[in-house]
Formats: sequence, structure tokens, C-alpha cells
Amino acid sequence: MTTPPIRARRILETCIYAEDLEAAREFYTRVLGLEVHAEQKSRHIFFRVGEGMFLVFKPSATRAGMTVPVPLGSHGCTGEGHVAFAAEEDELEIWRARLAELDVKIESEVDWPQGGKSIYFRDPAGNSVELATPRLWGLE
Amino acid sequence: MTTPPIRARRILETCIYAEDLEAAREFYTRVLGLEVHAEQKSRHIFFRVGEGMFLVFKPSATRAGMTVPVPLGSHGCTGEGHVAFAAEEDELEIWRARLAELDVKIESEVDWPQGGKSIYFRDPAGNSVELATPRLWGLE
Repeated sequence: MTTPPIRARRILETCIYAEDLEAAREFYTRVLGLEVHAEQKSRHIFFRVGEGMFLVFKPSATRAGMTVPVPLGSHGCTGEGHVAFAAEEDELEIWRARLAELDVKIESEVDWPQGGKSIYFRDPAGNSVELATPRLWGLE
Repeated sequence: MTTPPIRARRILETCIYAEDLEAAREFYTRVLGLEVHAEQKSRHIFFRVGEGMFLVFKPSATRAGMTVPVPLGSHGCTGEGHVAFAAEEDELEIWRARLAELDVKIESEVDWPQGGKSIYFRDPAGNSVELATPRLWGLE
């Protein structure tokens, strides 16, 4: 190895896919309280979440690639993806009440043996969305 | 609305999918320098990246769901996903040299009009991997 040691230290963009971007917009702003950073109605909607970005792409559009002006690599998944957002343990009761109020059905709840708790539900595209305490991963 | 205001403020888990988990393990440890947190060879490999988790799932396994002991929601995508890791601007030259040294082909490089730079390449499963300066999103 001749280059200096280097490693990725932080995730900047987390992506999921949804054909119906309007439904995704509505869900992630209304249910999760996310803030739209940018959108291109036929291709993507980008949310800023803390120090990272949460990107929802329409796979039938992103599979075609894009030129900005150099070509960006195409991508685009089908099937149900997964994302988790951090929640403090004392916020979980509020989240449960909020999800109930908004008629978002909780799919499962896990009290992890190693510590930490998770609540799972679905976005309109069927992606598995989780609210979890960072303690689940030994994180604060 | 009767519940107190609440919103997701941080992403905890970022996921991509790869049928060949061993190839993913090799790539993300060797090329990106990530640290394995846990793995289950037929199902997933989990990396810790800063204050978040990067989860690589084998979709043919996760689509079947899992019980821990309550059932976890199934998920699992096919196609090429996308993830970006943060890099400082002065690290990009080191990353370019490192990728060249490891024979990882750069697919494209973008100097964004709004500021910020990105380098794109592929993981062994074909997922689009990006190293980008947070400035691209107005983040530090």
C-alpha cells in the first residue's frame, strides 16, 4: 500500500426507492416530520435529516441514468428496502401515539436482548421503516 | 393533533443489498476501510460507520423475514442501490489514489454547480457507491 491510510467515517446519503414520490413526500413529511431539501417530481425527493441526507428515488427514472453534465451512474431498486431513524427511549411512547393518531400501523416492536428497542412500520411503497434507540448498536 | 410534536432527527441505519455477502465484506473493509460490527454469513453483514450503521443484507434471505422472537418485517431489494459516504475535499486525492491502487474503477466524478464534489464507483453487487463532500448538501 502506497497511499496514506484512509477510511469512510460517516454516511452522507441513505437511499430508498418509491415509484410514487408524492405519496413518499406526504408520508415522510407528515409521519416522520422530515424537511424537504429538494425535489424533482418525476425523479426524486431529497430530505435533510440531521447531518445526513435521506434520498427517495423513483427507480424507473433513476435506472435511466442522468447527465449533470458528466454521466451519473444509474441505480434503482425494486422490492422493499429498509431504513432506521434514531429515537430516544423516552420518545418511543410519543412515536407510538403519533403513529396511532396518523393511522400508521405498527408492524412489530422489538425489545432487543442486547439492549435497545425498535418499532417497525411501512411507508406507502412498502419499505420497512424503523424507529430505534441507538443503544441497540451500542451507540449513543 | 394531540401528541407532542416529534420528528426523526437522525438516520441510524443505512441499507444496501448484495447476494454475495463475502464479496461485500471484502470490498467494504478493504476499499472503504469499514469495520465489521456483526455478521450472519447467510443473511447479513453489519458495519459501524461513525454514529450510524451500514447494513448489507442478502435479499433472498431477508425476504423470508426473521423472528427475534417477534416477527421482524421482511425486506429485500433487487437492482442497484446507492449509498454515499462523506469525504473531506482534501481527502479526495487520497481516495482517487487508493481506488486506483486497489483497481476500483471510478465510474464518474462530479464537480457540483452548487459546490461540493463526488466520486462514483461500484461495489461487487453493482451498487453505486459515492464519496462526496458534505458541502454538496450545504452540510459541513
